[in-house]
Amino acid sequence: MLKARVKVTLKKSILDPQGSAAEKALKSMQYPVESVRIGKFMEVVLNEDDKDKAEKIMHEICQKLLSNPVIEDYSFELEG
Amino acid sequence: MLKARVKVTLKKSILDPQGSAAEKALKSMQYPVESVRIGKFMEVVLNEDDKDKAEKIMHEICQKLLSNPVIEDYSFELEG
Repeated sequence: MLKARVKVTLKKSILDPQGSAAEKALKSMQYPVESVRIGKFMEVVLNEDDKDKAEKIMHEICQKLLSNPVIEDYSFELEG
Repeated sequence: MLKARVKVTLKKSILDPQGSAAEKALKSMQYPVESVRIGKFMEVVLNEDDKDKAEKIMHEICQKLLSNPVIEDYSFELEG
């Protein structure tokens, strides 16, 4: 079994209203915050021991279900 | 300026319906998935160059605004 830690973030050109709201709230609380961007973090446990196969599967899963390639980027790390 | 990459995950004992839905969908697509947990990923840029101060600020921000300590855990990495 391998565990994949996936980060899905909005592309830079896409507005992030959730992040802007957090940024404004933190600024109003006097924190020295420059910007906040909010994305998703997922942990996927795979029934697969071969790292190469797992990587291929994760790319498919990320593209098909875990991210929206039109507006989001993804990256992941596999750990055994 | 320092950038913090924050991961917020549901505590293990807390049900994750969003993750369960993704897990079921992936299983129905015949992917060898054991489990999926979904959390949040945030990038916070701080107007602060001192790593110790930035760490203290990030702990405060995470506890007060970015996570719900009752049901979520957080972790972050700072990079310069």
